[in-house]
Amino acid sequence: MILIIGLTGIPIIEKGDDLGKIIVNAAKKQGVNMRNNDVIVVTQKIVSKAEGRVINLKDMEPSEFAYQIANQMNKDPRHVEAILRETRRIVKMKDGNLIIETKHGYVCANAGVDRSNIKKDSLSLLPIDSNESAQKIHHRINELTQKTPAVIITDTWGRPWRQGQVDFAIGLAGMNPFRDHRGETDMFGFILKATNIAVADELASAAELAKRKSDEIPVVIIRGYNYSKGKGSAKEIIRPIEKDLFR
Amino acid sequence: MILIIGLTGIPIIEKGDDLGKIIVNAAKKQGVNMRNNDVIVVTQKIVSKAEGRVINLKDMEPSEFAYQIANQMNKDPRHVEAILRETRRIVKMKDGNLIIETKHGYVCANAGVDRSNIKKDSLSLLPIDSNESAQKIHHRINELTQKTPAVIITDTWGRPWRQGQVDFAIGLAGMNPFRDHRGETDMFGFILKATNIAVADELASAAELAKRKSDEIPVVIIRGYNYSKGKGSAKEIIRPIEKDLFR
Repeated sequence: MILIIGLTGIPIIEKGDDLGKIIVNAAKKQGVNMRNNDVIVVTQKIVSKAEGRVINLKDMEPSEFAYQIANQMNKDPRHVEAILRETRRIVKMKDGNLIIETKHGYVCANAGVDRSNIKKDSLSLLPIDSNESAQKIHHRINELTQKTPAVIITDTWGRPWRQGQVDFAIGLAGMNPFRDHRGETDMFGFILKATNIAVADELASAAELAKRKSDEIPVVIIRGYNYSKGKGSAKEIIRPIEKDLFR
Repeated sequence: MILIIGLTGIPIIEKGDDLGKIIVNAAKKQGVNMRNNDVIVVTQKIVSKAEGRVINLKDMEPSEFAYQIANQMNKDPRHVEAILRETRRIVKMKDGNLIIETKHGYVCANAGVDRSNIKKDSLSLLPIDSNESAQKIHHRINELTQKTPAVIITDTWGRPWRQGQVDFAIGLAGMNPFRDHRGETDMFGFILKATNIAVADELASAAELAKRKSDEIPVVIIRGYNYSKGKGSAKEIIRPIEKDLFR
């Protein structure tokens, strides 16, 4: 049996906050003691806030290109400027949508630049390196508890072909993001050629179920899932462009 | 707290089997009594088997087009023929991959036609109407237990931009596939414009975590997730082509 436990006691996060310590304390207060095999799933928004990856709209001086896009798409040019500064490549620009390959290589709408759950006139950016951020939380939790739960940082994105958003892993530490069945035989002796499950994304989605309203519960512990421990990075989940049929 | 409970006692499914009854019995044997708020997640493969949606390769007479594709892609022409018979539209055909819009409207590799966990020289097809299949299981469970757990039927698919597969909802009954936050305010008073979570897909992914090896645990109960009951269909999750930037 796998448990999905939302941590209810996480305060509003400010720049410089010690997330590892805040998570350990919230878990303790809830009577949940960390275990080595837990996965701690943390929503990107609070990581970005703790790391100061928040900008004020009034500090954005839009370029000519940002004005042009904003005009076409009926967006705030300062918001567009912030998106472009996070962009490596525009994957698709149509019908008011900006699907972006971020500087990290993730493909998502608006480069993950977001206005929700943040002070008025501010925007949150994705962490500079979410895997590094996950490592830091992982180490800090280990320091405080002597346990080695894996850490996943998630964001909420739409998908091609399907309506609605789900959560994805954008950073991780202490685990392998996949459960690879390639080369194994199925129950009829057939050798599986393609089955390689992106468990980090599935854990992200599972954790989202415990978030209630958007980011109300920003940290979730998943207990009882027997994942493969290891160094891992969420960058392994990024499909190399030469293997990508849709980029 | 949300629980993900894999049912271990599901036998190998044959055509004509009463899935609802098999699921209720397996749950009982495991000491799990169905509750109204449970979600029963069933892997497509056993639904297809129970419904006889299995074909023998030797019954496939490949068309000229199937031979041509098979030749280009180094596939079995009979397998390609089976895929084409499930196809409404080829979305992408490249590097040995066939990304298909199925007759139901789902977009996935090989139209969901699959060789794993099935007798040698057989292929499983997706159910003709997975929402109808989910409805049947939903009604049967209700008949046997007087409870109304939602039912989700899932398949394992790859994604654009990201490596590895995750499980998606292809059929459902007894629930709304989304948790819609549009129009609500976040904790800083900002009105959310886009947040509409595809919880049926997240439940599918969460359940996959309890499957162990591919389809070893074909039925999973998710307990404690407060979803919105209703008529719902997984077809609502299909993005209409005019709103799809990648089709």
